[in-house]
Amino acid sequence: MDRSAYSRGVSTIGERRRRPGPTVRDRVTEFRDGARLEREDRVITEEPLELRVGWPGRPAERVAVTMRTPGHDFELAAGWMVHEGITTPRDVRAVRYCTDETLGELEEFNVVTVDLAGPPLTLPAARLVSSACGVCGTDTVQDVLARAEATDPVTLSVATVLALPDRLREQQPGFGRTGGVHAAGLFEADGTRVVVREDVGRHNAVDKVVGSRILTAQRMPPVLVLSGRIGFELVQKAVVSGLGALVAVGAPTSLAVSLAREAGVVMVGFDRGGRFVAYAGAERLRD
Amino acid sequence: MDRSAYSRGVSTIGERRRRPGPTVRDRVTEFRDGARLEREDRVITEEPLELRVGWPGRPAERVAVTMRTPGHDFELAAGWMVHEGITTPRDVRAVRYCTDETLGELEEFNVVTVDLAGPPLTLPAARLVSSACGVCGTDTVQDVLARAEATDPVTLSVATVLALPDRLREQQPGFGRTGGVHAAGLFEADGTRVVVREDVGRHNAVDKVVGSRILTAQRMPPVLVLSGRIGFELVQKAVVSGLGALVAVGAPTSLAVSLAREAGVVMVGFDRGGRFVAYAGAERLRD
Repeated sequence: MDRSAYSRGVSTIGERRRRPGPTVRDRVTEFRDGARLEREDRVITEEPLELRVGWPGRPAERVAVTMRTPGHDFELAAGWMVHEGITTPRDVRAVRYCTDETLGELEEFNVVTVDLAGPPLTLPAARLVSSACGVCGTDTVQDVLARAEATDPVTLSVATVLALPDRLREQQPGFGRTGGVHAAGLFEADGTRVVVREDVGRHNAVDKVVGSRILTAQRMPPVLVLSGRIGFELVQKAVVSGLGALVAVGAPTSLAVSLAREAGVVMVGFDRGGRFVAYAGAERLRD
Repeated sequence: MDRSAYSRGVSTIGERRRRPGPTVRDRVTEFRDGARLEREDRVITEEPLELRVGWPGRPAERVAVTMRTPGHDFELAAGWMVHEGITTPRDVRAVRYCTDETLGELEEFNVVTVDLAGPPLTLPAARLVSSACGVCGTDTVQDVLARAEATDPVTLSVATVLALPDRLREQQPGFGRTGGVHAAGLFEADGTRVVVREDVGRHNAVDKVVGSRILTAQRMPPVLVLSGRIGFELVQKAVVSGLGALVAVGAPTSLAVSLAREAGVVMVGFDRGGRFVAYAGAERLRD
């Protein structure tokens, strides 16, 4: 491990350290002007955060797990509780990281408890009375791998990767009209477009393209193309459905990169302006 | 109501019709070069979708409510069920809109049931055995209004609105380094920046800025500025916290516009390149 990373408060993807910072360093391969350039990149950190609520006379209850960028976690917890109608600003008494003895180092800063002055106004249906249900990115990745479909390795040409965003956009009527919509598309490895769907939610667009193949009982094409950024949940969907490559116009998160690497999925980001960055599987991109 | 809208499969915000299309028409006010232009705009539709799962010998159970753009709802439902690990592609037997007699017209196309060949592999913790829990955008808006904080009407100058995105960006270290992060900021009505937070999730960034004021027991500044698009859940947070204005660089959704209007919140989108579009409260923007 690179010690200098610590001093700048930055970790690298895949390493285990105590408390993740807002960004992580990573080694990536940039494809530009027919060349491959190995370089350092910085990726936004995405880690699960478990939110618990406690009040006098009761053990704290887990009320949600959300993916977030570490930092200002107490603010996130307090704001979330109020916005969900669980409490009011004046009833927030304290916010703390969890200190369960059962939590490992990696989980310790991913569990936040909000202590209220009295009982909550409402509680979400999905909660578990829990003393030890910490979360961490590494476990989250392993959970997904456990239920992944087997994937055939995919090889893509650099020219195909560069062409995919335009082929996606050709079937994006909503974006041209409203500017407010995401698209997802399934493509063959040679760049043939199979199906494109739009939605306000990028995760919905992915559910739709995969669902279109499920409903017609057809083979799943191996390449998922996204109009936006790549968060963990999108890679999760791709892995569960056994897709072999994920190509996006936007940036990936740290947990998205981790999962793609563990699952053996080719992952490309920033595919625009005649260049792209490979975060996983660069060796399966051919000239 | 404009009948011509029907023939093109397009509705307008606020009207009630049977089945929402992927986009809706709207009257907006564009501010550009010192002028106000009333014009027609098209906004991406966002509506709640209730997902139910059924299998032989059991009434269907509600397993999730998601905000989505109507269209390809059966694909969305099938893909979601598989991605969540509830079933496998080969166990999806049928997908149908709900036909509960208790559902109103507006709800009928917002409830989709996936019938499985056998019991699900897993079910989410948050489910309700339900025969009548349809959802529709109008009800969703009313639910939020019922728990909104009282808001003082906010007046903003056009020059302030135009300057806000740059003032937000000045405090966005993560974006410059990674390109993969959203920001939210709270500002005073005169454009003074109070607090800015970044996160991979735009909803988290809003929870953080509001949470920062809750934890320090300080007054909530009235203007929320967002680096991206405006979905319903973001307006929901703003309304619950009593914020009076929402200014974004990106596009709003139909349900975001509806809620902002009902709540009396000023809402501005596409604030970039020296222009912006007011979707709600244009009368409270002064030259």
